[in-house]
Amino acid sequence: VELVSAGIVGASGMLGGELLRVLSVHPVLRSECIVAGARAGESIVAVHPHLRDVLHGSFERHDASAIAERCRVAFVALPAEEAATTVPALLDAGVEVVFDLSPAYRLKDAELHDRWYPDARRDPDLAAAAVYGLPELNRKAIAEARLVAMPGCSATAALLALGVLTKLDVPLDAVVIDAKSGSSGSGGALRTSALHSLRGGGVAPYAMTSHRHVPEIRQACGEFGLHPAGAEVRLGMSVFSVDLVRGLSAAVYVLSDGAPRSEDVRRGLHRRYRAEPFIRVQPAQGTTTPLPDPKAVIGSNFCDIGGGVDADGGRIVVVAALDNVAKGGATQAVQACNAWLGIAETTGLLSTPIWP
Amino acid sequence: VELVSAGIVGASGMLGGELLRVLSVHPVLRSECIVAGARAGESIVAVHPHLRDVLHGSFERHDASAIAERCRVAFVALPAEEAATTVPALLDAGVEVVFDLSPAYRLKDAELHDRWYPDARRDPDLAAAAVYGLPELNRKAIAEARLVAMPGCSATAALLALGVLTKLDVPLDAVVIDAKSGSSGSGGALRTSALHSLRGGGVAPYAMTSHRHVPEIRQACGEFGLHPAGAEVRLGMSVFSVDLVRGLSAAVYVLSDGAPRSEDVRRGLHRRYRAEPFIRVQPAQGTTTPLPDPKAVIGSNFCDIGGGVDADGGRIVVVAALDNVAKGGATQAVQACNAWLGIAETTGLLSTPIWP
Amino acid sequence: VELVSAGIVGASGMLGGELLRVLSVHPVLRSECIVAGARAGESIVAVHPHLRDVLHGSFERHDASAIAERCRVAFVALPAEEAATTVPALLDAGVEVVFDLSPAYRLKDAELHDRWYPDARRDPDLAAAAVYGLPELNRKAIAEARLVAMPGCSATAALLALGVLTKLDVPLDAVVIDAKSGSSGSGGALRTSALHSLRGGGVAPYAMTSHRHVPEIRQACGEFGLHPAGAEVRLGMSVFSVDLVRGLSAAVYVLSDGAPRSEDVRRGLHRRYRAEPFIRVQPAQGTTTPLPDPKAVIGSNFCDIGGGVDADGGRIVVVAALDNVAKGGATQAVQACNAWLGIAETTGLLSTPIWP
Amino acid sequence: VELVSAGIVGASGMLGGELLRVLSVHPVLRSECIVAGARAGESIVAVHPHLRDVLHGSFERHDASAIAERCRVAFVALPAEEAATTVPALLDAGVEVVFDLSPAYRLKDAELHDRWYPDARRDPDLAAAAVYGLPELNRKAIAEARLVAMPGCSATAALLALGVLTKLDVPLDAVVIDAKSGSSGSGGALRTSALHSLRGGGVAPYAMTSHRHVPEIRQACGEFGLHPAGAEVRLGMSVFSVDLVRGLSAAVYVLSDGAPRSEDVRRGLHRRYRAEPFIRVQPAQGTTTPLPDPKAVIGSNFCDIGGGVDADGGRIVVVAALDNVAKGGATQAVQACNAWLGIAETTGLLSTPIWP
Repeated sequence: VELVSAGIVGASGMLGGELLRVLSVHPVLRSECIVAGARAGESIVAVHPHLRDVLHGSFERHDASAIAERCRVAFVALPAEEAATTVPALLDAGVEVVFDLSPAYRLKDAELHDRWYPDARRDPDLAAAAVYGLPELNRKAIAEARLVAMPGCSATAALLALGVLTKLDVPLDAVVIDAKSGSSGSGGALRTSALHSLRGGGVAPYAMTSHRHVPEIRQACGEFGLHPAGAEVRLGMSVFSVDLVRGLSAAVYVLSDGAPRSEDVRRGLHRRYRAEPFIRVQPAQGTTTPLPDPKAVIGSNFCDIGGGVDADGGRIVVVAALDNVAKGGATQAVQACNAWLGIAETTGLLSTPIWP
Repeated sequence: VELVSAGIVGASGMLGGELLRVLSVHPVLRSECIVAGARAGESIVAVHPHLRDVLHGSFERHDASAIAERCRVAFVALPAEEAATTVPALLDAGVEVVFDLSPAYRLKDAELHDRWYPDARRDPDLAAAAVYGLPELNRKAIAEARLVAMPGCSATAALLALGVLTKLDVPLDAVVIDAKSGSSGSGGALRTSALHSLRGGGVAPYAMTSHRHVPEIRQACGEFGLHPAGAEVRLGMSVFSVDLVRGLSAAVYVLSDGAPRSEDVRRGLHRRYRAEPFIRVQPAQGTTTPLPDPKAVIGSNFCDIGGGVDADGGRIVVVAALDNVAKGGATQAVQACNAWLGIAETTGLLSTPIWP
Repeated sequence: VELVSAGIVGASGMLGGELLRVLSVHPVLRSECIVAGARAGESIVAVHPHLRDVLHGSFERHDASAIAERCRVAFVALPAEEAATTVPALLDAGVEVVFDLSPAYRLKDAELHDRWYPDARRDPDLAAAAVYGLPELNRKAIAEARLVAMPGCSATAALLALGVLTKLDVPLDAVVIDAKSGSSGSGGALRTSALHSLRGGGVAPYAMTSHRHVPEIRQACGEFGLHPAGAEVRLGMSVFSVDLVRGLSAAVYVLSDGAPRSEDVRRGLHRRYRAEPFIRVQPAQGTTTPLPDPKAVIGSNFCDIGGGVDADGGRIVVVAALDNVAKGGATQAVQACNAWLGIAETTGLLSTPIWP
Repeated sequence: VELVSAGIVGASGMLGGELLRVLSVHPVLRSECIVAGARAGESIVAVHPHLRDVLHGSFERHDASAIAERCRVAFVALPAEEAATTVPALLDAGVEVVFDLSPAYRLKDAELHDRWYPDARRDPDLAAAAVYGLPELNRKAIAEARLVAMPGCSATAALLALGVLTKLDVPLDAVVIDAKSGSSGSGGALRTSALHSLRGGGVAPYAMTSHRHVPEIRQACGEFGLHPAGAEVRLGMSVFSVDLVRGLSAAVYVLSDGAPRSEDVRRGLHRRYRAEPFIRVQPAQGTTTPLPDPKAVIGSNFCDIGGGVDADGGRIVVVAALDNVAKGGATQAVQACNAWLGIAETTGLLSTPIWP
């Protein structure tokens, strides 16, 4: 196997640390440039204690040309404002492909982008060319892209849950998504609400009536046919911060007059995801088998999905659970990179989750 | 003030321990009979370590006549099966009023009751006579009742959130409730899913497509006019077990074509709950004020409620947060008892929550 | 009862919030001046959501004269650097007594003070006059003091555990203290190690070979005769940050050649603390009664203590558990203030802990 | 590479689930017989949801002959009582080597064994022949053993921390160990103290004045020369149950009159563990590098160790952190098996820990 060198830009953050973790056991990809901004020069293990004796040395200073010289691919795990300009710089310098874990290049609609990410002044042509990096929906486009805009963690979970709708012939009325998110999703930013003393023991409404991942979900629903084209579907999401470090659970409630049976939902999920190595469909509710809980996927690229029907409530209920820094972030970017490289998507990603 | 003696039947459980806690500082009510079943004879503090030096002695054996002789009122915190027969026995023995914290006498519809609580063989006449114990909805009936069926914790939160609808003139399309619940809600029963090792670090779907509190919520919506009488409203609830000991958060999503503005929702909440001492309405979202988080009500009888409108999603979002063993259980029962006694509902209940 | 007005300086911090909570139900003390520095002008409930509908208004700007005019007593809950100058300013302005929750005036030895708190430039005369605010050890002096230096949370627990030694006639060899601390102890300061994502799920050595509360413990051991005067006792403490918001547990290991029996330790604890309303001595180990766990004292001024002897290990083991922001901070300051006022120390402090 | 078939006896427990996890990615060892007692016939993923799509099928019924026929090696993860008789049965049936994760064959001294494990009626000859399975201390004996008695989780951490003493020439006075343990250590047994509602938010003294791992630690100290042979060293351990699922931290406090400097301790640790692939020695305290926290080793076979000297307290402080079901249990058993097989001890075990 020929090794492929990768640059990790924004390596001192939590997604950066997870990229370094998964690449440390990847048989093809190699962390060649490990780049941090303000923390350049600091010891890697001082920031990422899990990497002691796994990686050595210090974070490099950012230098797009140096990265392009030494790396074919780059992963960008920066805030949207910084990613907006770093991504084109890397491509201009000659990096073959960039996997952008920030939201800088996710939204096609410029107005929506500016509304949600006003500080991310991005390259409009690049925004038009970027492909959405959810492999289960878009692997062909990913394989030929120069810029892959990786999905947000709650968008990944919600879209994979909504995938069942392509296998159910039901009229859509409205979609309500309720996501419960772990604290690692907000990275290492110092905010009062991120303090252990203030978050521990709570269930904090983080985004009640809107969330920046909603336009991304709507856009992907349209692009990938998750609901009838042209339909006016009401879709909203609320996100809660729970006392959890890793993990995200998204409950997708589909209001529908033509509610199918629970069995149809499960069969639809099986048909939709039969061939997907990272989607684990849960069996029937009511057995001793636990339904999707992010606890069962921690440290892995799996997304567990289960669903059923609440006939009295007129709802289809689908729950998707994933590890927000893994399938919801870093390992999914490696999955997309595997697709781009033309190697098996599972390469380097088949670790078994931690339990309990 | 004339003291009123109370019997606590089922005092060795978690709701029982909370009743003993709140009665230990109540100026009128006094724990006179502290009764446990299997643990009769055991030291109270061996089961409830928080009560050391507060209460002494051992749990008494259950004896309806002895309770009736010594107590005017009784709180029953037993499983539904046991409450079903214990409640009438206490009333027959001469207890003036029973506050039943179990679901045994909540549902009026016999068929629904039998479907959800098949082991709770209750007295049909008593079921017809029981009044629903949510003081904010039903205090007049409580004041004259012999049997008060206290609401479930998620029903309390959901119904108080739904209360805003009485002040909003909007067509109702569907209601989806997503509740996140702490582990104290399931009491001290030994179940594998209740183990710390299996629940910690997870977000477990506990009841995805149905929950036994749903018929109770529907019944109360009809009885108390929370939605237009006779309307066919789709209403469903999913409950998740989060890594939290005390606390419950219920997100109520109301799908409505005639969505009002966020300001209307907040004004509606204020109008509805202005005079309620235990309902704290949250101000506008987007300020530095945290939205309703059960963390801010722990140990108290408060229910914090806030809401707004997601215009794009066609949703009214109302979140209610409470302490599941307090306002969702024991302190609400004391509030109802205060109402029955004709003393201020706040008597003995004005402790300030713990934070952080 | 004549009301006593109190100033709370540093009211926007966690200890400040707890002072406001406990004073909100105190029958004698009244929060008259609620003062914050940088957050002056901000709404109190925006910072302390538990106080909604309990307190209204905004934090005042600090003004020693205004406080002295309106308040007889002041509680100072500031960082040591600020307390060092704020305390004398309040006394000079005419406040009758100050309860300083910071470490600014705890250590008598100037050299030790300067080594551990180099930024706290305090008034030397005041340092000499300050009395140590642990009521169980020093209530007479507190009653006549102008400045009461309240103990640190781990010092409170360690000293109360060490109290048993006054009732045991054993040669002391060495003392090792291992404390496990909740995150509320470090207040709301924004530090990376205080993030939920980094602290959750860990057991972080916070202070392995030394801790700033050690000189305070040694000083108090000498002053209050907890070990033979003049003896050279080796005493060290290590503190661990556990995944806990409220609570502190201190294990005190006393190495002694003349190890007594477990029964002697328990009897010694009982003799020592029989008359103390806030010290709850645990019964014999090996019963179903849980040993001291901070979980059983949350929200209260109790300190639970239990102990025994490990004959094989040559150790006396005493464990003290308390709520670090209550008995380890704010409620203990109110207890000291009660002592100063000459009213029952339990006034306003007899709430029963939360459980579970 | 020739595959080696392994039997996992007690595969439905937490250590069993972890063995299945690590063997699922092991290049040489293969889970051939997956055996459970009471749960034989149940689906594996119904018990171990992390293994969905990784393993299929059901637990087999125990049958020593069948295991011996199909497997060269066996891992026994049963309670001591069952292991005591299952181990000899497997060896008699022809299994080449057994790795016993229970304490049944750890203690050489029959009296001590009977005192701590009275229900484990073991084979005395086998007890004499068993070798202690801590590879860092005993790999040569492991390589030639028929029965390897794997250490307990807190014993592993304590002994690896005590290892530094072989490189420090100091007189030993006494050793005090304070361990903080996660809930996965107690497996899936249904006990009230193991409930989430009762353990969450607490620091519970689990074993204050004695713990069954103490005689094991003393025995190993003598056998492996961790302290001067024949010396009367006082050694005791207390164990606390913290709000943590995975992870164990052991603080080892060595009282010594001839206290070295912190630098000596760190140098001693480096010299002792330089060549050990799974021991990660922490650098100097006071840098930004976190000291050993089990959070940084979760999911891996690493044990992180750091130490220093508290001159004032007369203590050497060494802290060891590990994942109690991994290095403290299942992955260490695989490490020992690798040693027995004569392949690199790191085979299949070089996964990088999860963080955060």
